[in-house]
Amino acid sequence: MSNINDIPARMKAAVLRKPFDIVIEERPVPEIGPDEVLVKVMAVGVCGSDVHYYENGRIGRYVVEKPIILGHECAGIAVAVGENVTRIKPGDRVAVEPGVTCGKCEFCKQGRYNLCPDVEFQATPPYDGAFVQYIRHRQDFVYPIPDHVSFEEAALLEPFSVGIHAATRANIKPGSTVAVMGLGPVGLMAIVAARAFGANNIIAVDLEEIRLEAARNIGADFVINAREKDPLKEILNYTGGKGVDVAIEAAGHPNTLQNGLASLRQGGKLLIIGLPAQDNIPLNIPEIADKEIDIYGVFRYANTYEKGIDILSSGIVDVKPLVTGRYNLEQTAQALEDARVNKAKHVKIMVYPNGM
Amino acid sequence: MSNINDIPARMKAAVLRKPFDIVIEERPVPEIGPDEVLVKVMAVGVCGSDVHYYENGRIGRYVVEKPIILGHECAGIAVAVGENVTRIKPGDRVAVEPGVTCGKCEFCKQGRYNLCPDVEFQATPPYDGAFVQYIRHRQDFVYPIPDHVSFEEAALLEPFSVGIHAATRANIKPGSTVAVMGLGPVGLMAIVAARAFGANNIIAVDLEEIRLEAARNIGADFVINAREKDPLKEILNYTGGKGVDVAIEAAGHPNTLQNGLASLRQGGKLLIIGLPAQDNIPLNIPEIADKEIDIYGVFRYANTYEKGIDILSSGIVDVKPLVTGRYNLEQTAQALEDARVNKAKHVKIMVYPNGM
Amino acid sequence: MSNINDIPARMKAAVLRKPFDIVIEERPVPEIGPDEVLVKVMAVGVCGSDVHYYENGRIGRYVVEKPIILGHECAGIAVAVGENVTRIKPGDRVAVEPGVTCGKCEFCKQGRYNLCPDVEFQATPPYDGAFVQYIRHRQDFVYPIPDHVSFEEAALLEPFSVGIHAATRANIKPGSTVAVMGLGPVGLMAIVAARAFGANNIIAVDLEEIRLEAARNIGADFVINAREKDPLKEILNYTGGKGVDVAIEAAGHPNTLQNGLASLRQGGKLLIIGLPAQDNIPLNIPEIADKEIDIYGVFRYANTYEKGIDILSSGIVDVKPLVTGRYNLEQTAQALEDARVNKAKHVKIMVYPNGM
Amino acid sequence: MSNINDIPARMKAAVLRKPFDIVIEERPVPEIGPDEVLVKVMAVGVCGSDVHYYENGRIGRYVVEKPIILGHECAGIAVAVGENVTRIKPGDRVAVEPGVTCGKCEFCKQGRYNLCPDVEFQATPPYDGAFVQYIRHRQDFVYPIPDHVSFEEAALLEPFSVGIHAATRANIKPGSTVAVMGLGPVGLMAIVAARAFGANNIIAVDLEEIRLEAARNIGADFVINAREKDPLKEILNYTGGKGVDVAIEAAGHPNTLQNGLASLRQGGKLLIIGLPAQDNIPLNIPEIADKEIDIYGVFRYANTYEKGIDILSSGIVDVKPLVTGRYNLEQTAQALEDARVNKAKHVKIMVYPNGM
Repeated sequence: MSNINDIPARMKAAVLRKPFDIVIEERPVPEIGPDEVLVKVMAVGVCGSDVHYYENGRIGRYVVEKPIILGHECAGIAVAVGENVTRIKPGDRVAVEPGVTCGKCEFCKQGRYNLCPDVEFQATPPYDGAFVQYIRHRQDFVYPIPDHVSFEEAALLEPFSVGIHAATRANIKPGSTVAVMGLGPVGLMAIVAARAFGANNIIAVDLEEIRLEAARNIGADFVINAREKDPLKEILNYTGGKGVDVAIEAAGHPNTLQNGLASLRQGGKLLIIGLPAQDNIPLNIPEIADKEIDIYGVFRYANTYEKGIDILSSGIVDVKPLVTGRYNLEQTAQALEDARVNKAKHVKIMVYPNGM
Repeated sequence: MSNINDIPARMKAAVLRKPFDIVIEERPVPEIGPDEVLVKVMAVGVCGSDVHYYENGRIGRYVVEKPIILGHECAGIAVAVGENVTRIKPGDRVAVEPGVTCGKCEFCKQGRYNLCPDVEFQATPPYDGAFVQYIRHRQDFVYPIPDHVSFEEAALLEPFSVGIHAATRANIKPGSTVAVMGLGPVGLMAIVAARAFGANNIIAVDLEEIRLEAARNIGADFVINAREKDPLKEILNYTGGKGVDVAIEAAGHPNTLQNGLASLRQGGKLLIIGLPAQDNIPLNIPEIADKEIDIYGVFRYANTYEKGIDILSSGIVDVKPLVTGRYNLEQTAQALEDARVNKAKHVKIMVYPNGM
Repeated sequence: MSNINDIPARMKAAVLRKPFDIVIEERPVPEIGPDEVLVKVMAVGVCGSDVHYYENGRIGRYVVEKPIILGHECAGIAVAVGENVTRIKPGDRVAVEPGVTCGKCEFCKQGRYNLCPDVEFQATPPYDGAFVQYIRHRQDFVYPIPDHVSFEEAALLEPFSVGIHAATRANIKPGSTVAVMGLGPVGLMAIVAARAFGANNIIAVDLEEIRLEAARNIGADFVINAREKDPLKEILNYTGGKGVDVAIEAAGHPNTLQNGLASLRQGGKLLIIGLPAQDNIPLNIPEIADKEIDIYGVFRYANTYEKGIDILSSGIVDVKPLVTGRYNLEQTAQALEDARVNKAKHVKIMVYPNGM
Repeated sequence: MSNINDIPARMKAAVLRKPFDIVIEERPVPEIGPDEVLVKVMAVGVCGSDVHYYENGRIGRYVVEKPIILGHECAGIAVAVGENVTRIKPGDRVAVEPGVTCGKCEFCKQGRYNLCPDVEFQATPPYDGAFVQYIRHRQDFVYPIPDHVSFEEAALLEPFSVGIHAATRANIKPGSTVAVMGLGPVGLMAIVAARAFGANNIIAVDLEEIRLEAARNIGADFVINAREKDPLKEILNYTGGKGVDVAIEAAGHPNTLQNGLASLRQGGKLLIIGLPAQDNIPLNIPEIADKEIDIYGVFRYANTYEKGIDILSSGIVDVKPLVTGRYNLEQTAQALEDARVNKAKHVKIMVYPNGM
């Protein structure tokens, strides 16, 4: 193992003990195995799923049964590497892809490792996450970032990856018209992805002005406030009555799903990212058949981090303004609480476990 | 124009004047243009859409506003060809692909000519169909068939094409597990298509024994009578708890759609062929996202006839037993009526406009 | 037919009678059919194939047997439209896709209309081209362009289309590394295409400084003068020893082909656009097999014009500096001669049949 | 670890010490790790690469520097499994996929694990192979086979996998016309693969009658003895002048490569499996460009074993007659020598390390 100086023996972690109960605990800094990297965590985004665990103690079949460290959108500095590690050296600034997959199941072997049943995903029970000062991670899911990409941008690679995966599945290309519905960080980064894949006609739909404004800044060509206008009419109008090639649903709402489907042109594609509160949503079946629509579920991502780093490092757009709140590790509970209650004010909140 | 002897000046046609009112009329044998073929119609399948027009006078936005000749699953003999016709010669036994497309719109240019907005499709108002002794058709949609493929088999190429198109869209291959739900002629021919594309584990689901029996004869490896057993449980059981790679919904029923989706394994594909009585059907959205399902609408077909002829002529399976009723042109009304009321007895009914 | 004022009865055309013999003739302005558009030609690029016909009177099996008008990279103003024309109206500024396809052969039906055996392609014997004041063209190959896209840029859509087609075949995406070898207008526009499809690491190789400079201005990240440096070594060095994902050969030279192949990483893709002087070029077969390379021939393009307009109109890059020479119709012979002898000075030469 | 009775402590192995020098040695039966299976080897095919190592002591950069056990086409009985093994239980009859990949590199993560730079491939220096009584292998590359699939058939899955991989890369489907050139076991199994993927027009080319006869028995529709007829003329003739959709070169000969390319229709695909004696073979470049050919290198395979088992177990064709020679482990040297000198007599030779 080779490392750099000053790795302490103990560290601070923000631990969720039960809903609404986060405490700062002291933990030993993890030992790394021969294929692992020890990462000093510099920035961690707060994701909707973190807020959901914080509020409800569970997401579907994943239940917080013992104390857990949340946070899975993370970047930092490699401070030590195991003896087999070749792609990272101590001192590297890195992004961390949170799900470590088995590499051996049929999904891994087919290149769809996001479907690996044995994945160990940060901040998904029983696996700890990144609201902590140091984490260990298998080297093949740690990616060096260039100097001019900030830790915050690198942390944004996680939601960006969902957008890149959606754009890949939809085969977005120059000439594609794209509507993104629901402008949380995933929806916003999906706009960046669509732009990077060549789309020049991107429509963004949301209810909150702050998010529509962010969409505009980040590359949306046309924004619709669905409180004020009928998104379907507006989309059809903007596209000369044709509809869009691709609709990306990132809101998880029945109306947006149905509007997303209705806004498609013949042969169009609907990407489902958002999870609605209720499972069963009525969809117009003859429309799917007659217009020969493709609908693609989107579950996390695979093979996106290198692409994401390439895109962000190209300077295509400045995503840093998406970060609207900054907190120390000690303020993690406040960060989650603010993310929970203050959706009209915040786009992405970041926690800095080793100081801002 | 070169032709063969004995083309009469006038012919008989079965004309739908209004719902439930079909009469045999005499019409002039059509003149053909320079790119057209005159086909003496030898066998025409009765499709569910024919029955629907017969019963209701409309399908969605297509309304029978003036008398129409139904029938669009047809095969016959080329008896005359226009001066530009090169691929067909008089005397050829031929299958007729019923939709004549523009070749100039963006969908035609992209190879998705089934989405052509200017298609002229037999038996879809205002275009006449094939319950008639002679039709004219543009040569590029007329296909010679080998001697050992019967007119009946050639007429079955039309529903077969839907199955081939579905198999193509689903990318069925050796190793694929496939469930076909709804065993009308399209569902049954989808089984043949899945088999031809290499699938060796095909499950067939229906309520009627006659159709399950046909499925078994035509290549299904496992059949489920949904009156007696829970199809979802049976499919999961048959696949060792995994679910199938591909589910083809050809019943147009909410339950089969929902079962089709639930029966899929991770990364599986749902093909929607059947049109339900009501438009909006609740689908489980988190299941689509978490299992990263693809859903594909299927609208008619493109580039399938040559493939279908190749498959049928290879002798992969004997599809002739699917024909359960045979009628003269004069009996067209009876053929439609029997198809309408007698679903438990009939799979595919054929009309023979120039005699059996 | 609806038109705009002032269409003359006769016009001037630059006619190639035999190699090196171009004369200005007067011809009647063409009559248009019901599906056709009359285009007043405003800018026409000189293509290498024009020069080749001018010099040799033939390209392979295409032989100039009677006088022909060359030029097939053209843009202009729609001045009259046939009675069936809906997508163009008189006064529209338009780009013209030069090959009019049959829409009925199997290649057209599969969306690969560039392989249509019955295509009528401008300036390919026996079809006349665009070094003339007015042409007629079937409406579905005429595309309106936005006000801010110039006629010159619209004329560049033709070589751009080859690049877009190559990028599409290679499935270039964000993260792709691309080497373009041979920086004629097609190679240069392939750089723009690669950029538009998301590539951020584009290497350009040529022998001429003027072209390398153009590549740099148009978006290449790294340029190699193959007179001075070993392109293979440079590419491997630039990519950290890995090689590139995609190599686009647009020079038609044995060395570049072999270098293109050798510069690929495992699983890489070689696009062959350039035609070498001799047919048979030795390629390293074990390298193709062991690295599991894909090689794609590129023949013209299909479904590229809308994409190209979308890209150019997005302002991704200023391609106008590629035009290095401007000539009146009367100077067409000079334009061809300059293009023939002065490759180190010129990138793209334009002819303006209705004045600059 | 759970096992079955009667696993000995020591075993016999056929060891290549230097070219033409194979001796039977006694070795300890391997210990298995927690993820490994101990396989009692029942049948091992002799591959051309085994013969090549036997004759030359090297293949390209792979050099036999210390004694090595050859053989990598193997099937047997799982007799013990490590503690983490779930997909195999002792007593299972199994096929063994010979290359064990890392699961962590970018190629593994993209589903192209055949390009893994860290693969440990049986019988490729420095890794031992299967001419031995027992081998250990990581569980995820061990596949249970049904009772009615013999060990010999299971051993044939290895060359079959190359054919399946080629068919997958070529996207062979019903309607595809396929020419297979070079009818060693890989070429012959490629015929079976093409058939399984739906092709009904398969042409087989070779110089040896025994192989042409095998091709005929295994599903080729038309065979050409290239000693007697011009394969290119025959193929064009058989396809009505069009050429084939797919040509699979499995001979590794310049003539077959060039014929393969020339026999393709427009838009056709050439698969390169065979490695010629000399590296650089002249290919007709304008033909590749003008006909817009795809050429695909084929290197081993990925995700093929389950498909292969599915196909063989479906009984599509009887491949057992391909086995033309059977030898005990003690006769391994003789098996390799016969394979080396007797190509006109043998198709596939099998070694039975635990008795026939």
